[in-house]
Amino acid sequence: MGGESEKWILMVTARTPTNIAVIKYWGKRDETLILPINDSISVTLDPSHLCTTTTVSVSPSFDQDRMWLNGKEISLEGGRFQSCLREIRVRAQDVEDKKKGIKIKKEDWQKLHLHIASYNNFPTAAGLASSAAGLACLVYSLAKLMNLKEDNSQLSAIARQGSGSACRSLYGGFVKWVMGKEDNGSDSLAVQLADEKHWDELVIIIAVVSARQKETSSTSGMRDTVETSALIQHRAKEVVPKRIVQMEDAIQNRDFPSFARLTCTDSNQFHAVCLDTCPPIFYMNDTSHRIISCVEKWNSAEGAPQVAYTFDAGPNAVMIAHNKKTAALLLQRLLYNFPPQSDTDLDSYIIGDKSILKDAGIKDMKDVEALTPPPEVKDSIPLSQKSKGDVSYFICTRPGGGPVVLSDETQSLLGPLTGLPK
Amino acid sequence: MGGESEKWILMVTARTPTNIAVIKYWGKRDETLILPINDSISVTLDPSHLCTTTTVSVSPSFDQDRMWLNGKEISLEGGRFQSCLREIRVRAQDVEDKKKGIKIKKEDWQKLHLHIASYNNFPTAAGLASSAAGLACLVYSLAKLMNLKEDNSQLSAIARQGSGSACRSLYGGFVKWVMGKEDNGSDSLAVQLADEKHWDELVIIIAVVSARQKETSSTSGMRDTVETSALIQHRAKEVVPKRIVQMEDAIQNRDFPSFARLTCTDSNQFHAVCLDTCPPIFYMNDTSHRIISCVEKWNSAEGAPQVAYTFDAGPNAVMIAHNKKTAALLLQRLLYNFPPQSDTDLDSYIIGDKSILKDAGIKDMKDVEALTPPPEVKDSIPLSQKSKGDVSYFICTRPGGGPVVLSDETQSLLGPLTGLPK
Repeated sequence: MGGESEKWILMVTARTPTNIAVIKYWGKRDETLILPINDSISVTLDPSHLCTTTTVSVSPSFDQDRMWLNGKEISLEGGRFQSCLREIRVRAQDVEDKKKGIKIKKEDWQKLHLHIASYNNFPTAAGLASSAAGLACLVYSLAKLMNLKEDNSQLSAIARQGSGSACRSLYGGFVKWVMGKEDNGSDSLAVQLADEKHWDELVIIIAVVSARQKETSSTSGMRDTVETSALIQHRAKEVVPKRIVQMEDAIQNRDFPSFARLTCTDSNQFHAVCLDTCPPIFYMNDTSHRIISCVEKWNSAEGAPQVAYTFDAGPNAVMIAHNKKTAALLLQRLLYNFPPQSDTDLDSYIIGDKSILKDAGIKDMKDVEALTPPPEVKDSIPLSQKSKGDVSYFICTRPGGGPVVLSDETQSLLGPLTGLPK
Repeated sequence: MGGESEKWILMVTARTPTNIAVIKYWGKRDETLILPINDSISVTLDPSHLCTTTTVSVSPSFDQDRMWLNGKEISLEGGRFQSCLREIRVRAQDVEDKKKGIKIKKEDWQKLHLHIASYNNFPTAAGLASSAAGLACLVYSLAKLMNLKEDNSQLSAIARQGSGSACRSLYGGFVKWVMGKEDNGSDSLAVQLADEKHWDELVIIIAVVSARQKETSSTSGMRDTVETSALIQHRAKEVVPKRIVQMEDAIQNRDFPSFARLTCTDSNQFHAVCLDTCPPIFYMNDTSHRIISCVEKWNSAEGAPQVAYTFDAGPNAVMIAHNKKTAALLLQRLLYNFPPQSDTDLDSYIIGDKSILKDAGIKDMKDVEALTPPPEVKDSIPLSQKSKGDVSYFICTRPGGGPVVLSDETQSLLGPLTGLPK
């Protein structure tokens, strides 16, 4: 490390995906280390539609650790941020950037301060696991900056201490968070079951549902469930272990019916134990229920699952379609039941992979209005009874890859000379 | 029995209450005999506000069994009606009405036909356990007509075969349906834990909630739960038995905090196992959830339960207040959150025991509009955000007595000469 007067800044920018659990994580056995009471399995979502980008930088000129989220400075004082920073700094290695003439010895990292800027390419408040992608990206980018020797699985155990489900964002494709047995949490980490190419025909449609009520945070919610539910331990010990094995098989064999059945029943059971909490927790609302009914009715009429649904700690539906064809049929059904409000532009109502909209044969609002009831619906719903505005928008996406470093400096979120948000 | 030409008609009219379970019945171990997988406990509701009145009549001039519900003829062919009729007929005794000069020998009952008229003093479709009161009243009035020697508990085992929860309507006050062990169901019957005078300060307010969706019938719903839920057996075998003991104690000791805690958690767990069913069953809707939040917030602010809530297989809330004072405070909160639609008359919005309205200091709509937010609510809700119309109406009532024979002939639902609905 050079003298105090040196003004160099070293930075790394990385992008990390968000993920959606198909076997749910709900309940901790250790609140500080964030150790879960059961294994969970997730699908990583394509970062081109849902991801966090983070730039981490270090400079002898920085006098404190600072962080900006979506351009706004936020506090790094929370225990979870501090856990991650501490765990990464103790593993930091010597770093040399010959081009810039920078040399940092591993013991220097304890003294150097960091500037961190993070940006979600989706609304933070929409309940789309922004903290999972965010904490994973923080840990991943810092690990690259500080030249950590740990692999992604070992890094996942650090990200876990920032936000439990963040550990699953260290890999693309299909990921299992092994709950582990150790008291210190060293074996509670993510492993990749299969990469995103293993089962690349799946299509994911997310309904961002308008919520009227404030939601219970997942941290306090799962604590209340563990403390008060008479069913949660039975779920964690007797039900989930079997489902984990079945889900691994379903993913391995690309067995969509089993995958869908397990995904839906496990989502419903997670919400069941929330309801069994005292006081009860409701994350799904009437719109969520109607989306489930729409999918269940269709699956039942077809005699085999076309689409799986799953809901996290909020009313948004994540639907996983077997392939592009079923995704287009699903989108038709969703637009029939949940048309946009008259002043909403179709282009901002369906975002992400627009090719699904094209496959569904929908070019403009006239095509939406012309949609006929799907065959499984006996009575057509009058337009006046359709609930415009119950869904804010839909995101079309797919399973995606894991974290990557963005070497193109134009993608950095911090100024190369100032170390402040661009 | 006289000759074929005789035109005599013998009739009995009885009134039977409805009941609301505070430890829920959900799941059968025998579909035909209607044998449950766990004990349940209910509170009988005051029949002056919610009851079924049934007139049963017999005459040699009737050429078939016929039944009218709320003035409309309905089929008696269903297996459940037939089970009840069969079970009662085999237990029928000699009957003599000296005044009318009628003598029926017990073996004659197999040949004689019945006319039955039944009337609910509340909307049948409102999801207020009309089948429970109805089947209990059918069995009770037939038992009186045919001079059965069985006591109410033994009659409850017959009513059970018509509609499971009907067995609990054979008693007033606090009633336990013992699941029994016998394969033939002979020991699956209701027993009274305490009569309505034992704990007479309780006040019950029912919110009849407007439902947008058709509901799953409880018969098919509980079958699906038993077949598909991974949690229902744990509930039935491990959770409910303990709660039954605790609830019996709470009722015995008039321990309202325990009574309320058990009532709320058991209602929530029943809805949790419904959600854990495949496909999931939703009986509560957003309005139900908001009623729960309103009660939970208040209970939590007071540091002790003021009110218990419970929901059956539908969105209606049944709230049990500790006493008249808390009932008035509850009604203020309910009217603040769920004011009637502007064209609704307050007198038809709050029905039943109007004294609660008076206790709450509400005489007209101006008083409703003047309600200020309760202390536990931080931000007052603008009138525009209140959901008028989400509740159809409220019924104020209390725990009540069991079945009674109405000896006043003017209360009969069948004409004394025609045997047809008046």
